[in-house]
Amino acid sequence: MKYEVSEKFKNLKPSAIREIFKSLGTPGSISFAAGNPNPDSFPVADMKRIADEIFENEPVTALQYGITEGYAPLRELVAKRLKKVYDIGTPDDDLIIVTGGQQGIELTCKVVCNEGDTVICENPSFIGALNAFRSLGTKLVGVPLEDDGISLEALENALKANPRAKFLYTIPTFQNPAGITTSYEKRRAVLELAKKYDILILEDNPYGDLRFSGKDVPTYKSMDSEGRVVYCGSFSKVLSAGMRIGFLCAGKELISKIVVAKQVEDVHTNVLFQMICAKYIEQCDLEAHIAEIRVLYRKKAELMISALEKYMPEEVGFTRPEGGIFLWCSLPEGLSLDEFVKKAGEKNVFVVPGTAFAADPEEECHSFRLNYSMPSDDEITRGIKILADIAREMIEKK
Amino acid sequence: MKYEVSEKFKNLKPSAIREIFKSLGTPGSISFAAGNPNPDSFPVADMKRIADEIFENEPVTALQYGITEGYAPLRELVAKRLKKVYDIGTPDDDLIIVTGGQQGIELTCKVVCNEGDTVICENPSFIGALNAFRSLGTKLVGVPLEDDGISLEALENALKANPRAKFLYTIPTFQNPAGITTSYEKRRAVLELAKKYDILILEDNPYGDLRFSGKDVPTYKSMDSEGRVVYCGSFSKVLSAGMRIGFLCAGKELISKIVVAKQVEDVHTNVLFQMICAKYIEQCDLEAHIAEIRVLYRKKAELMISALEKYMPEEVGFTRPEGGIFLWCSLPEGLSLDEFVKKAGEKNVFVVPGTAFAADPEEECHSFRLNYSMPSDDEITRGIKILADIAREMIEKK
Repeated sequence: MKYEVSEKFKNLKPSAIREIFKSLGTPGSISFAAGNPNPDSFPVADMKRIADEIFENEPVTALQYGITEGYAPLRELVAKRLKKVYDIGTPDDDLIIVTGGQQGIELTCKVVCNEGDTVICENPSFIGALNAFRSLGTKLVGVPLEDDGISLEALENALKANPRAKFLYTIPTFQNPAGITTSYEKRRAVLELAKKYDILILEDNPYGDLRFSGKDVPTYKSMDSEGRVVYCGSFSKVLSAGMRIGFLCAGKELISKIVVAKQVEDVHTNVLFQMICAKYIEQCDLEAHIAEIRVLYRKKAELMISALEKYMPEEVGFTRPEGGIFLWCSLPEGLSLDEFVKKAGEKNVFVVPGTAFAADPEEECHSFRLNYSMPSDDEITRGIKILADIAREMIEKK
Repeated sequence: MKYEVSEKFKNLKPSAIREIFKSLGTPGSISFAAGNPNPDSFPVADMKRIADEIFENEPVTALQYGITEGYAPLRELVAKRLKKVYDIGTPDDDLIIVTGGQQGIELTCKVVCNEGDTVICENPSFIGALNAFRSLGTKLVGVPLEDDGISLEALENALKANPRAKFLYTIPTFQNPAGITTSYEKRRAVLELAKKYDILILEDNPYGDLRFSGKDVPTYKSMDSEGRVVYCGSFSKVLSAGMRIGFLCAGKELISKIVVAKQVEDVHTNVLFQMICAKYIEQCDLEAHIAEIRVLYRKKAELMISALEKYMPEEVGFTRPEGGIFLWCSLPEGLSLDEFVKKAGEKNVFVVPGTAFAADPEEECHSFRLNYSMPSDDEITRGIKILADIAREMIEKK
């Protein structure tokens, strides 16, 4: 039979990154395209032991339906850690466990926006979030990202021009894809603009724990006293991505609606992994584990940056992240990004073209994203050399 | 700050059942309100062993990001079993693993319907599905359920009156909440009507494996040669509800859009449990395990039916399911359902009022749902006695 797909999904494409992810089987290929944590960051032995304990002592809790809000001990532990590490959470806030940060982002938009409402985002931004907003029939307005965060002038212009803007979606720390961290001053100013134009801020912070140099910048949520900020966190980058555990901290009223929205999406998040997370936090030293991941990623980031400095023609710019798992390279104007990405792929080196992260996919773009958490040290050096050769050749031909 | 919740969520309430579920802590209370599988049906020892094996041999696959379509070996095993057990699946069909049947239902509606489109459902029907459809801004039209399935006349009238109807949502086998199974003849006729009015059928079959008497009736999907039926299945009632693993089998084109919709909701379903399911099917005897659950539920259903026959005043009607986990009781007209449910709760016996399952919650209703999979044998006998006493007292007072 012929049927019509809903308007929202007619033109929505699968994430370019996840499509690349699927075709990464080729032996010898080097992928800088993933957003995956390094498998060395999974505390396998502890998880194995804890899973075993759960199956031994509390199998029914793990295997039976749970409540939509999440496994109570995990909710408490996460709230406690958010308060301790980030000074997040007031008596008016509540917390819900979600099926990965992705669900937290999607649910927030679903509960806050009607079709036709506007979502303001950094440009470039995380494709998974942008597609979630698109899938809900909202209008995306991208605001250019500067070295210290979103452009304030452009943000205010966007807010003026879009009275139906409901929230700003931002990844203020080690932004995906750009690796940029929004400065404290800018965060204050963005929060003021959010107040002035009465919009929410959805603060997505999956990488915040992964700072390997520089100083922590306070989260938006820690500066929020009026329930204006919805904070989205995740265990994907510190314990396991495959287990799909994230959380949202926001005003109680909003969380109560998000509970309803989650209930109709998947009833609740898988219980065993919520229990594994909770028991890992109780029994093991999560902060020490995170400190190890930081050392690992600092090394990899430094290696990639030094390879870029050594091999890449100086016409190619790149960010120097202080944490997270991405950096962002920009080709000089006049060079074709498509051609560059295609040539890299032909040499079995995979990067994600910046177009994938654009609020408006028709927009011209000269940048691409590099991930350093997944490739081996050898792959980083070899891969950057290959990319540098391609860039040099293209610049020389120009 | 004050913010507006989106229109779709303004009036959507949490599921009455899941709210009851939360307050079931009272010692000595008897709950016929759940939709939970009996914990004895969880193959704990096998799962423990398999989880251990996975953490030993393939931890990275289990803990790293997976692909949205699902863990490939599980997809193959499910497709094979669907073909073997239910004769489901043509070369034009594809299969996706989802985060419980609930997500399968929600995603189907999301991809097929625009806001304002109509979903036809059985009346009464599963509250989780109805709320999912409501949350997507669709209009629900309920068609009365008869002893052998949906009323054909009322269905055709509904289709005539609602040209924006996109699909019929049906639980043809051991319906939730009514416990009714749609006859083969009626299934054929419903499929003809679906063709005539060119709508899809979303066949939700979480209980189909749990037949304990009578003969299997072919699924809609097995009669479908043109991609008109979307089949939704689940491991919740045969392996574990807490692990949130379900699946959708439908035409390739539709599945490709559902993949995009799932990607923005939760990227993929938790991988460890997909692996546990796959290895359980490979290493253990799923069919023998299901046969044991059937024996367990037959005993419980027979016990509940005989208690109802023995104690319940004859003015109270009830269905006699041949499988699944629910039966449906109807008070005589003139008796207040609210009063009955309230009195039962005061005596610590919990049932779900039929109003929770109504397409139109304002509609008058005299029925309530009883679950027999969860309570102990003793609880079934004691609980039905208490309900019978309340009903008798109310009838006598009338």
